[in-house]
Amino acid sequence: MYRHTVRYYETDKMGITHHSNYIRWMEEARIAFLKEKGFDYARLENEGIYSPVINISCQYIRPTTFPDDIDIDVTVKAFNGVKLTLMYRMYKADTPVCQSESMHCFLDKSGKPIRLKKSFPEFYDMLTDNIKESR
Amino acid sequence: MYRHTVRYYETDKMGITHHSNYIRWMEEARIAFLKEKGFDYARLENEGIYSPVINISCQYIRPTTFPDDIDIDVTVKAFNGVKLTLMYRMYKADTPVCQSESMHCFLDKSGKPIRLKKSFPEFYDMLTDNIKESR
Amino acid sequence: MYRHTVRYYETDKMGITHHSNYIRWMEEARIAFLKEKGFDYARLENEGIYSPVINISCQYIRPTTFPDDIDIDVTVKAFNGVKLTLMYRMYKADTPVCQSESMHCFLDKSGKPIRLKKSFPEFYDMLTDNIKESR
Amino acid sequence: MYRHTVRYYETDKMGITHHSNYIRWMEEARIAFLKEKGFDYARLENEGIYSPVINISCQYIRPTTFPDDIDIDVTVKAFNGVKLTLMYRMYKADTPVCQSESMHCFLDKSGKPIRLKKSFPEFYDMLTDNIKESR
Repeated sequence: MYRHTVRYYETDKMGITHHSNYIRWMEEARIAFLKEKGFDYARLENEGIYSPVINISCQYIRPTTFPDDIDIDVTVKAFNGVKLTLMYRMYKADTPVCQSESMHCFLDKSGKPIRLKKSFPEFYDMLTDNIKESR
Repeated sequence: MYRHTVRYYETDKMGITHHSNYIRWMEEARIAFLKEKGFDYARLENEGIYSPVINISCQYIRPTTFPDDIDIDVTVKAFNGVKLTLMYRMYKADTPVCQSESMHCFLDKSGKPIRLKKSFPEFYDMLTDNIKESR
Repeated sequence: MYRHTVRYYETDKMGITHHSNYIRWMEEARIAFLKEKGFDYARLENEGIYSPVINISCQYIRPTTFPDDIDIDVTVKAFNGVKLTLMYRMYKADTPVCQSESMHCFLDKSGKPIRLKKSFPEFYDMLTDNIKESR
Repeated sequence: MYRHTVRYYETDKMGITHHSNYIRWMEEARIAFLKEKGFDYARLENEGIYSPVINISCQYIRPTTFPDDIDIDVTVKAFNGVKLTLMYRMYKADTPVCQSESMHCFLDKSGKPIRLKKSFPEFYDMLTDNIKESR
């Protein structure tokens, strides 16, 4: 579980967290998830794996604001060796505030798709092992 | 058609526009769309209409970077008097780079849903008149 | 000592942290400093104390990038009851990366200056007690 | 004169533009200034000139908010061939809202200082010719 504290500069004149920031927290939580599983994102990039975002969806359930503590649970929703879908559940003190997904592909420095199973089998195995049954 | 020029500060170390910024451009384009249709968002808020985002989806088609000019076309995809769905098509020199949607509701200052048809009929009519046939 | 981990979305296409983010980290560190001294910024605002920034100066010593851990030391440089100057020293593993200052005033909800000594003596005393000798 | 329209996402819960955004507008105005003088910043980077920010100072005169139009006047305050200081004067309908400065050096891709007079004499001449008498 990753925790993000809402920053003052993340609020807007409606008095709540601007919705674009949840997209950034997804990235923070994704990077923390990978690190926890043994894969440092900065190291992945140094080894030549880039993981751009293909699409994003985000459902805003309840507003949050400074200085709320937001707990973010990341799970692997789907992974077929080429595309990865992560799911994010965000809570404020156990109350759901946001649920979202991001889909990623994996490219080398030249922008060509990487076959993770062949080139980075440990990373492939970790993602495969962490696919959650849908609930 | 709204135009956003990608800012240097919107890029990331991958050398491309960070994906979270497209969510912000959607807001810029949405506000420009409303203004073009005769509805100034700042004035709407002053009159007590708040329009928070309920959900967002965003499909990243091609990367962009500083200082690309991005043209954004906004259309009303759906509106039932309570919820509004806008669609955004983003182009770089006629090449699609992103397609996205946002869903909104309408609240008064106390956070209660507004019945636009009754309280703001002109705004209701404009949105209804602009619903595009799906293609 | 407050710690900020540089986010991927805080980098730019030069491959380093965009300079505007240090201004945001100053705010994070300032709020953490006040909290540590017993003054929750959200509570201060609820009690009617607003503390806008009057000016900022920031000296960038060495570049940082994702995922560097930045330690930020905040000290009260000057306080005369009306204007407060804070100093920030930022380090990456004991190496200075940035040194900056912010000056603040204190306003009530209507935008009128507050005399802290009279209206919020405990807050006044804390700030006065924490003025550091210049080195 | 460069114009920036304050974005909704640039406001904070105080109802005004968050102070960190002015630093970003300085970058926008700086890039527009260079372009107007015939130097495209993206092209400068492609030719191997990087121009990191050494320091920033920013004096906030009056608050601004969405959707204010901010006019930004950029002038060369000082340039000695190695360090460049730009000054920014920001106005809302002729009323000053912010005054700021940024200092820059010029580096090649490997991070070594560039002698502009020798390597990029046209750029050197433009900056020298535009130094404003202090008022």
